[in-house]
Amino acid sequence: MTTSTVKEYKSAVFQGQVGKEKAFAKNGKGVYMTVEKNGKEYSGIIDAISGAAVASLGWGDEDVYDIIQDAARKHTYSYPAYVTNQEAEKLAKFYIENSAPGAFASCLWTCSGSESTENALKIMRQYQLERNMPKKVKMISRECSYHGFTMGAMSVGNTPRGAPFKDLMIDQENVCIKMPRCYPYRDMKEGETEEEYGKRLVDTLEKIILDNDPDTICSVIVETVSGSSVGTPVPPKGYLKGLRDICNKYDVLFMLDEVMCGTGRCNPNGKLNCWENFLAPEDAPDIQTVGKTLGSGYVTIAGVLVSPKVLDVFISGSGTILGAQTYHSHALNCATALGIQEKIKREGLTANVFKNGNLMGKMLKEALLSDETNIVGDVRGIGGFWTIELVKNKQTKEPFAPSLKIASRFSDIALECGANVMGIAGADNYGGTWDIICLGPAFIITEEEVKLLVERLLKAVKTLSKQLKQEGAY
Amino acid sequence: MTTSTVKEYKSAVFQGQVGKEKAFAKNGKGVYMTVEKNGKEYSGIIDAISGAAVASLGWGDEDVYDIIQDAARKHTYSYPAYVTNQEAEKLAKFYIENSAPGAFASCLWTCSGSESTENALKIMRQYQLERNMPKKVKMISRECSYHGFTMGAMSVGNTPRGAPFKDLMIDQENVCIKMPRCYPYRDMKEGETEEEYGKRLVDTLEKIILDNDPDTICSVIVETVSGSSVGTPVPPKGYLKGLRDICNKYDVLFMLDEVMCGTGRCNPNGKLNCWENFLAPEDAPDIQTVGKTLGSGYVTIAGVLVSPKVLDVFISGSGTILGAQTYHSHALNCATALGIQEKIKREGLTANVFKNGNLMGKMLKEALLSDETNIVGDVRGIGGFWTIELVKNKQTKEPFAPSLKIASRFSDIALECGANVMGIAGADNYGGTWDIICLGPAFIITEEEVKLLVERLLKAVKTLSKQLKQEGAY
Repeated sequence: MTTSTVKEYKSAVFQGQVGKEKAFAKNGKGVYMTVEKNGKEYSGIIDAISGAAVASLGWGDEDVYDIIQDAARKHTYSYPAYVTNQEAEKLAKFYIENSAPGAFASCLWTCSGSESTENALKIMRQYQLERNMPKKVKMISRECSYHGFTMGAMSVGNTPRGAPFKDLMIDQENVCIKMPRCYPYRDMKEGETEEEYGKRLVDTLEKIILDNDPDTICSVIVETVSGSSVGTPVPPKGYLKGLRDICNKYDVLFMLDEVMCGTGRCNPNGKLNCWENFLAPEDAPDIQTVGKTLGSGYVTIAGVLVSPKVLDVFISGSGTILGAQTYHSHALNCATALGIQEKIKREGLTANVFKNGNLMGKMLKEALLSDETNIVGDVRGIGGFWTIELVKNKQTKEPFAPSLKIASRFSDIALECGANVMGIAGADNYGGTWDIICLGPAFIITEEEVKLLVERLLKAVKTLSKQLKQEGAY
Repeated sequence: MTTSTVKEYKSAVFQGQVGKEKAFAKNGKGVYMTVEKNGKEYSGIIDAISGAAVASLGWGDEDVYDIIQDAARKHTYSYPAYVTNQEAEKLAKFYIENSAPGAFASCLWTCSGSESTENALKIMRQYQLERNMPKKVKMISRECSYHGFTMGAMSVGNTPRGAPFKDLMIDQENVCIKMPRCYPYRDMKEGETEEEYGKRLVDTLEKIILDNDPDTICSVIVETVSGSSVGTPVPPKGYLKGLRDICNKYDVLFMLDEVMCGTGRCNPNGKLNCWENFLAPEDAPDIQTVGKTLGSGYVTIAGVLVSPKVLDVFISGSGTILGAQTYHSHALNCATALGIQEKIKREGLTANVFKNGNLMGKMLKEALLSDETNIVGDVRGIGGFWTIELVKNKQTKEPFAPSLKIASRFSDIALECGANVMGIAGADNYGGTWDIICLGPAFIITEEEVKLLVERLLKAVKTLSKQLKQEGAY
């Protein structure tokens, strides 16, 4: 059986297409990167998704090299449950101070968005136990949601990628409850206003809470703006506020996942949180996960932000978190993230990507939605986070057959046109499918670079649309 | 309710004792570090546990600064499921080549031991699905085990720390099955030989497999040498080989967790894996998790090693891992870990810590076990990984009452004596408790530093023993 050796395989890394040759990132500078794929080098590629909506500062940032070097020299690892470090404290204070006043009071630094979800689940459960409400265990999240790739995170997520692992999940009937997704492009009824759609979703949540006994509900968990699952739908007016109010009404924790949409990617005021577009400070989430742009891809850091309300319950309760992961509050990661966030703030880059990202969205909308000869059904997003949805029929919104792998094919063409995008084959658990192209450029992107990127994306759309027309695929 | 602000609290980091002032790591050089605790500075402390058995190269390593700086300059983040990097490939090849021949064929790089466990669980489950054996879902791990702090990892773990989160775990009756712990000091019967004890444990596993229907068993999961749970017991002769044979007999995957004990901490031949002390190359695990010393605490990296047997099934099956975490195969982390491992190999530091660690163990045994006036019940371990167990009665092995917090008190005294140790209050789910002090120095520790460390530890034992005698606690 065990006759293989590593030499027989093209790759020794166990991911993607295992054992097959992969595309490699060779280098990067600013929003540009060089990729090697099938022996061909693609240089001058605009990284329109900054890795995976990660690289807030882009690539090859000389300041970050200095920040990391300095952080490395100061860094002494310690086990954080016993001995912590000032870097973790400083980053926590920075995040709290650059959020809406009073929103957050304490932060936990982890190594990934998935770990942040895992820790948030535990914090919310312990919160209910500290309050002597052990029956409050159910977590309500959305259909088609994605909150990470570890088992707890996949349990509150809901994508077909999780299906093979259902036997390893947290109880999907009695603990992890699902409510409808928020996907206006596909789910708003004809004649329904945005507000009516939002209210319909909120009413459904209330019904689910009532049907499940409010005294057993621990939390409601949503991405402020969903990312890789349904592609950056802007929450309908009143929707998030409605969720917040329902949570208050039934004494349920309100958790926002801002791993992909947060930490400057979509904030209108040069601050950090995406929800500040949609919610007043007093409607802040009780707990929030963050990641990605926090460390700009240079270091592997993510976090959990905790509100005063939650912190107070812990402090007046046991005051204790039992144990910690080895790499929680890692000093090098925290110091690097802090240096990166300070630079972003100093240079106004959050405001920059909000403005130029919205310009990109506007240009794409104007060029693509009015043109009946292409395959673009929708362009949606906010600030630095946008999605192009590709469809077979622009009127009926009918998607292409999954076997055509349209999103993946678009990505390949986009690379040929000089843009690195994230093409995602979306699917729900009822047989529904869709093709989305996610865009999340670095915060440093200029107006000129936006124009060049849009030009390349339009070329990719035109090329694929033409090919598919010739093939009779639409 | 929400009247608190961050300013009222002594800490903004949500871990340990929340909101309270914490001990801080100030700086470190080699095996020494400076800690600030309750306003007092402790300098020249020997870090006897290297953070949490992490810092293989110790602190302030000038070469590592160069390695990180170089890695940062070369690093361009990409989403690894689509576009990977050569650093991940190189580290994978290094690990495979420095393991027993034929043991491993592919590696996945994650950000923590917990994430490695999560991914290993998913890989093992997918392995059974790829072979069209969907009934094989049950994971057998040990009582009192620790495999990480995320929900999947806690589900195969079994410590009271997990108890509050039982409702969020993978099914503990039908999926995550437990077999007896391996804890010779407390569980070997009078008159029983090491081999007999090992065989008893193996026979119990076989009975559990038969009772649960072998066709439903996916895997057996153990730490080669357990760490923070029961404190570095050396596996009884024949035990691991017995587990391996039982796994072969019933077509069950054999997974070793070497996050704490592996990657050079306990290898007799200057290589990487701990199991090479106990198992022949042909008895290698099918899958293995690693972490901690891999990145020496400088970067947050861990991994999953996959055998040719598992890889072959994926390649002849779907060949596909659906999705990846954002920070899998992180180039900066992989490049830094590779540089660190190359230095460890070049300088023979694994052999060094094996020799000097064993010297430390021998000196502690000789000084502590024959002396009837102290509270040390056992000294056990191998290579660079040792434990001192503290007991109320050396003859009966009766532990101290948990309320005395003996392990934590020992840690405080050890710090006063100039040593940073990991004091752990152990517990099972049947009311059993124990106090262990874990030691895992940096691989660079010299004979002189070992002697100084032993001197300090002996002083701490003497001090606490005397205090407790005076208090009438034993």
